[in-house]
Amino acid sequence: MSETIPHWLTKQADLKPDETAIEFVNGSTITFKELSDQSQRFARQLAFEGVSKGEHVGILSGNHVTMIIAIHALSYLGAVGVLLNTRLTTRELQYQIVHGEVSVLLVANNLQEKMNELDVKKKKTFSDIQNQSEKEVALQAELTLSDPFTIIFTSGTTGFPKGVIHTYGNHWWSAIGSALNLGLSDQDKWLAVLPFFHVSGLSTFLKSAIYGMPVYLMEKFDKKMVHDAIMHKGVTIISVVTVMVQHLLEQLGEDKYPETFRCMLLGGGPAPKPMLEEAKEVGVPVFQSYGLTETSSQIATLSPKNALEKLGSAGKPLIPAQLKIEGKAPMEVGEIYVKGPMVTKGYFKNPEANDASFEDGWLQTGDLGYLDEEGFLYMVDRRSDLIISGGENIYPSEIESVLSGMAEIKEVGVTGKKDATWGEVPVAFIVMKNGEYLFEEEIINYASEQLASYKVPKEIHFIEYLPRNASNKIMRHKLAERL
Amino acid sequence: MSETIPHWLTKQADLKPDETAIEFVNGSTITFKELSDQSQRFARQLAFEGVSKGEHVGILSGNHVTMIIAIHALSYLGAVGVLLNTRLTTRELQYQIVHGEVSVLLVANNLQEKMNELDVKKKKTFSDIQNQSEKEVALQAELTLSDPFTIIFTSGTTGFPKGVIHTYGNHWWSAIGSALNLGLSDQDKWLAVLPFFHVSGLSTFLKSAIYGMPVYLMEKFDKKMVHDAIMHKGVTIISVVTVMVQHLLEQLGEDKYPETFRCMLLGGGPAPKPMLEEAKEVGVPVFQSYGLTETSSQIATLSPKNALEKLGSAGKPLIPAQLKIEGKAPMEVGEIYVKGPMVTKGYFKNPEANDASFEDGWLQTGDLGYLDEEGFLYMVDRRSDLIISGGENIYPSEIESVLSGMAEIKEVGVTGKKDATWGEVPVAFIVMKNGEYLFEEEIINYASEQLASYKVPKEIHFIEYLPRNASNKIMRHKLAERL
Repeated sequence: MSETIPHWLTKQADLKPDETAIEFVNGSTITFKELSDQSQRFARQLAFEGVSKGEHVGILSGNHVTMIIAIHALSYLGAVGVLLNTRLTTRELQYQIVHGEVSVLLVANNLQEKMNELDVKKKKTFSDIQNQSEKEVALQAELTLSDPFTIIFTSGTTGFPKGVIHTYGNHWWSAIGSALNLGLSDQDKWLAVLPFFHVSGLSTFLKSAIYGMPVYLMEKFDKKMVHDAIMHKGVTIISVVTVMVQHLLEQLGEDKYPETFRCMLLGGGPAPKPMLEEAKEVGVPVFQSYGLTETSSQIATLSPKNALEKLGSAGKPLIPAQLKIEGKAPMEVGEIYVKGPMVTKGYFKNPEANDASFEDGWLQTGDLGYLDEEGFLYMVDRRSDLIISGGENIYPSEIESVLSGMAEIKEVGVTGKKDATWGEVPVAFIVMKNGEYLFEEEIINYASEQLASYKVPKEIHFIEYLPRNASNKIMRHKLAERL
Repeated sequence: MSETIPHWLTKQADLKPDETAIEFVNGSTITFKELSDQSQRFARQLAFEGVSKGEHVGILSGNHVTMIIAIHALSYLGAVGVLLNTRLTTRELQYQIVHGEVSVLLVANNLQEKMNELDVKKKKTFSDIQNQSEKEVALQAELTLSDPFTIIFTSGTTGFPKGVIHTYGNHWWSAIGSALNLGLSDQDKWLAVLPFFHVSGLSTFLKSAIYGMPVYLMEKFDKKMVHDAIMHKGVTIISVVTVMVQHLLEQLGEDKYPETFRCMLLGGGPAPKPMLEEAKEVGVPVFQSYGLTETSSQIATLSPKNALEKLGSAGKPLIPAQLKIEGKAPMEVGEIYVKGPMVTKGYFKNPEANDASFEDGWLQTGDLGYLDEEGFLYMVDRRSDLIISGGENIYPSEIESVLSGMAEIKEVGVTGKKDATWGEVPVAFIVMKNGEYLFEEEIINYASEQLASYKVPKEIHFIEYLPRNASNKIMRHKLAERL
């Protein structure tokens, strides 16, 4: 039997009505009581539009307080939020809308144009809803931990995105696992700048509701503004990806962060060691972590006390979590398996993916890593061929499948190329059909129409044939060697 | 489906092998690795004695590290600990052993005499086990939150003690609820002096395993030693009952506790307001709380920021918990109901008590209180007639039922009398059968043979008849008025 807890935002509105839930860059704030009231109002307005328990509601928005309100509103109705990456193309969004069974799409006011291109039963801007009447319905006073709350699509090795279901319990346990690791202080203020349509960003404002902690909301990463927030606005923790750490170190220069700034939580793949060393040297508390959409944010983190001696490690699994390298001795590289109550129970309506990924409660991540003699995790590579570019996951197979759609192309292999700014960028190797010819620009244009810009190959190489192994799979590492 | 988590002590042995799990008054310590190793060894020794998953093992011991090891050992085997109050008489213990279905009894070495008087299939001292061989068995690497872990008997209004079942999940959620309220710092050190056979004491060393936090272990309350530990040993939190606060305030005199001492968590019933005011005046951070065995320790606590303006309140329910005064408006006294994942799922093999106590997932506590306009709980009285004496619960009906066993006595009414040291003490009103006569001393002696000393009436009053209401129930408050 699943546990129920009081609705976390209502609870904070009761415990800390006048305390800050969200602080904005312009210095204004909204309290937990205000956030709860506004979210409940939004819920009743959604109810007027016919949204009810169990319904899948797409959310397409950049980081904005109304997005937070909309997501909390869904939890008051028991509806499920399908969180859509604003950088995706119409085609990519449509795929997630269809496969996520979205019946209502909510869109930030500034994305109305994108909305118009999408085919959904009902489409509304945030303003449409906020101008709507309210329907008096019973709002959820309790959250049942086994109920689904959000769905976030993540690309798989097959190239078809899979919808990761997060229950209330997954988010709760993720927040608790993090608190047990980092500690919990009533001085904490977490800077939220990672996209809320990714679980890393989403988890920040859910932690705010679960802990009763203020978040400092930033709509976009701007190194000067983030730097300023850490230096002068009492920010104690920030979640970042590698490229942000680099910018922040640059911006820091000879300065020192205040001592109250206690954690720069770094996710999104293996981090370059020289950067970690630099951070260590100038006293920036970078905590490397390991996590994926399926684990509802980080599942392993290097704790403060080990940060120096284990530089480059993603630490140990959080207290409620387990992690193993299946069948491998210490120091041997193998596939990372994870288990714990913050790990998704499965992909939405995708029995093949579920069968392939879960084994006795363990999730097979596909990522490669090893444990040292003391059990600290070192990631070696993201799931086989995954490219991570500025914190976004890119699956080569997805790009390959798109480019193969060009009549002139015989076959395509995509791999990642190291990049000083983005960590990696995708690069395509093209084999043309006999007698056909394409300009590089034509291929880029074609890709741009169908793929989010960060997925568009940054280089095109024409080759005679793709290196393949005995079972005829493309050996992408051989392509990478050519770069 | 219930969640599983890695075994909490094994986890800390992995995360913090060399950090202190338990610090002793003499300055020595044992680390998490040592505690885990010793508990696993003890588990294998118990396995050699035939103890296995699901078996009920009685534990009769004062606060001692071996008791901690024994209880952790049970969690490695999946056995259930029935925790026995050392102050009980043979008759009282035997009742709990029978009704708790204890098949093996483990007893502290200094309580061997008491052990010999008890009738159990198998009886062993801690030393017996520690001198035993080890059997190689698979120890639990994971804890399933819905599995039972401990049973603690609590007297009911009927006078027959009921076995409260605590699952791993109950203890886990209790620890998390407390951490979300009090915060969590790696500087924390919790002083454990309340008896481990009560859930208040038990929860302290379970929090140690769940958080990875050191406990400062004290076998008995000694005001000088506790004072010294707070002043000089880095203790940051202590759980206490009212009588201890009084002693500590006395001991404190003109001194001030160090600023790092952040919480004196006060449980065990309504606290006298003058004492709370004195504590406030001298800057002792007393946090009043409300909880019962059934809630796995406190379920409501006055948070630091409200401690001053809401003096006398037990605060608000913890983040994962709910509390209501059934059917009452603010300021109206009524029965306290509680709900949450730290609340027991039921009494062991006691369907009548379960039917009477649970309603839609809410536990009817029988305690009386009210909520103020802002939802802060004020306890008015423990469940109708409960007497709380030095933190121990005493049910009048239990004493009445024992004394009624004397042939000369016609009927008995027991009530609590205010006492400067213990808060309350039990007092008996006796109606003799026609023509019979007893000395006060005879009654006290008779009671002492069958009841723990704290339950033995401190005064005996002979009266002609007992005040009864229309439905013939004794009106104990009328007795109390006579005192």
